[in-house]
Amino acid sequence: MLKKPYLMLAGPTMVPERVNAAMNRQMINHRGAAFSEMLEDILANLRWLLATEQDVLIYPCSGSGAMEAAVANFAAPGDKVLSLSTGVFGDRWAVMAEKAQARVLKLDSRWGDGVDLAGLTAVLAGNRDIKMVLTTHNETSTAVFTPVDQVAKIVRAEVPDALVAVDAVSSLAALPVKMDEWQVDIIAAGSQKALMLPPGLGFLAVSGRAWQAYEHNPSPKWYWDAGQVKKSQAKGQTPYTPAVGLLFGLQESLRMIREEGLENRYCRHRLLGRMTRAACRELGLSLLAAAEYASDCVTAVVPPDGVSARQIQKLLREDYGITTAGGQKSLEGKIFRIGHLGNVAPTDILVTVSCLEMVLKRLGMEGVLGRGTAAGQKIMLEGFEQ
Amino acid sequence: MLKKPYLMLAGPTMVPERVNAAMNRQMINHRGAAFSEMLEDILANLRWLLATEQDVLIYPCSGSGAMEAAVANFAAPGDKVLSLSTGVFGDRWAVMAEKAQARVLKLDSRWGDGVDLAGLTAVLAGNRDIKMVLTTHNETSTAVFTPVDQVAKIVRAEVPDALVAVDAVSSLAALPVKMDEWQVDIIAAGSQKALMLPPGLGFLAVSGRAWQAYEHNPSPKWYWDAGQVKKSQAKGQTPYTPAVGLLFGLQESLRMIREEGLENRYCRHRLLGRMTRAACRELGLSLLAAAEYASDCVTAVVPPDGVSARQIQKLLREDYGITTAGGQKSLEGKIFRIGHLGNVAPTDILVTVSCLEMVLKRLGMEGVLGRGTAAGQKIMLEGFEQ
Repeated sequence: MLKKPYLMLAGPTMVPERVNAAMNRQMINHRGAAFSEMLEDILANLRWLLATEQDVLIYPCSGSGAMEAAVANFAAPGDKVLSLSTGVFGDRWAVMAEKAQARVLKLDSRWGDGVDLAGLTAVLAGNRDIKMVLTTHNETSTAVFTPVDQVAKIVRAEVPDALVAVDAVSSLAALPVKMDEWQVDIIAAGSQKALMLPPGLGFLAVSGRAWQAYEHNPSPKWYWDAGQVKKSQAKGQTPYTPAVGLLFGLQESLRMIREEGLENRYCRHRLLGRMTRAACRELGLSLLAAAEYASDCVTAVVPPDGVSARQIQKLLREDYGITTAGGQKSLEGKIFRIGHLGNVAPTDILVTVSCLEMVLKRLGMEGVLGRGTAAGQKIMLEGFEQ
Repeated sequence: MLKKPYLMLAGPTMVPERVNAAMNRQMINHRGAAFSEMLEDILANLRWLLATEQDVLIYPCSGSGAMEAAVANFAAPGDKVLSLSTGVFGDRWAVMAEKAQARVLKLDSRWGDGVDLAGLTAVLAGNRDIKMVLTTHNETSTAVFTPVDQVAKIVRAEVPDALVAVDAVSSLAALPVKMDEWQVDIIAAGSQKALMLPPGLGFLAVSGRAWQAYEHNPSPKWYWDAGQVKKSQAKGQTPYTPAVGLLFGLQESLRMIREEGLENRYCRHRLLGRMTRAACRELGLSLLAAAEYASDCVTAVVPPDGVSARQIQKLLREDYGITTAGGQKSLEGKIFRIGHLGNVAPTDILVTVSCLEMVLKRLGMEGVLGRGTAAGQKIMLEGFEQ
């Protein structure tokens, strides 16, 4: 049976036709004027997207590369670094900081819970020598959101000079990110999430405070060396071969984000998150993330007893063309995750929920057909009913 | 709000990515060997699709062009031609036959009804000098299907030498078409319906009996001259410039149809038709076509009193990205039509129905959310529940 592919992952996400068309061009000389002009346009739009007037660096790498670049450049060996982890990607960042020879303190949340802000205050108060705080804006493994503005406020109050580094890989262009207003120092992001591109580009936004730390960081680095990237970009260049085709796509995706408008885009993601959660709850499914920390980029669903998450995923994918993500690490086989970020329309949620209902019916649940869909429809309608 | 485009017309239909990719190639010399090879492959697959060993001609024209070619080549001035009309396209064919100076008899069905087979027998019995019978396999204006096999059987029984000409523009590759088994003489088709291509290609399949009529037809013709096309195609050529890009696409779409398999493809269209009709009925909407003649390619829906078809279409399109067709001629403003042929998956029906429910809710209907969707889901599930 013909199936339309719905890639409902937390990334890579669905690439819009316009972005694919933009990438379907002949390569250009990355040492020529046309490249410099494109790079300048892209950097201006990235600054707009990050709400910053500070530096934004582009690396040909995955999102994890940008995270490693953050610690490699701005955490010196021996620095005390506090990791706030709400899941797999928070843990990964702590490991990277350890590999960079930082002394890592950890404030881990139980998976599904948000960052413990009172705990954060206490740890900072007891460790005034902390140099950097690592946090994850949207933790895709647990579908938990971190209020980065509040984290930054607490850090500024307790340890004013500590750097706040934000993993915004899966939040940038989906959730509000306001680098300068929030006074965060480092933001790491990637191309394959809400930016609607294939994987392969990493972004690093860097504050003046972070550049000071860079100056005093003796650890050796070449590929990740932020200073080299900054120097090259100032001349409209890159220190090594950039991912030209992806940059063609990025220029177009930033144009699309401008056209949609940031506020509209954030509202849309809020709607997608609310629709998905309401539909799952109406179908009697539990959500992993605590309600007050639920992510609008991805929803982690705990199947009812006796129903296998893997089986749900398999039927969704094989019979209806809907690809969802499984659980990671200790959550493997225990949850499935519905991504709803980037090029996702509310109708994509309706399709996903309808197909989920059919799968649940086949797995023995009664009274599910149309029920989650109706819950999603109700939320979708609110905007039209005024 | 981001909308994904769902082109739920009876044509043009949604072009698959693979077909678009195949067309996105540099032109080739249409007088060279590569073109001849492609043409041969295409013609073999078209014969397979039409279930015929007879000639299939390709014109750079719309579906209506292929219909005009049918009368221009095979109906001589003064020939008595019987038109069986079930809607706008049946009427159009009768006008074309009149312009070709045939003497046209009409057996018109009330719009929404199928062909009156008993009436057909009677008209043929009273007019043994009929040379050609025109019929519409799938009448998109009324969403009515004609059992062409039964029509051909009656014609063969009553006036054995009369040509049976079938408009299969919107049925080919969606509904079973068996040219040789059914003993039909002329089949006209187009690219932009179930063949999943942009408009621009017309097809004409021609039996030996039809070629005899061609030999005795003195009416002047150049572009439509079927004999010239046949002669050129026999040499791997065309009498004038072919639509090369569309032929690249046709080669790919025929490959996709082979991969899906004809029986699977016909089953899928049957499922799409059943899902759409069941959902509409569950929502309390009337269908224009009589149940026994309901088309599996398109569904014509009559809105309840006080609800405007145009308003439904406008809200579906503007707010949810779903394009449906309106009514034609005397049905203008009175119905809307949901096309479900070609590159349409069952999930496309679920989205369309879900959005239709939201529109009906906004227009004042109660208890509709999720209800038609559930009716569609139930039919979709039947195939999985064995």
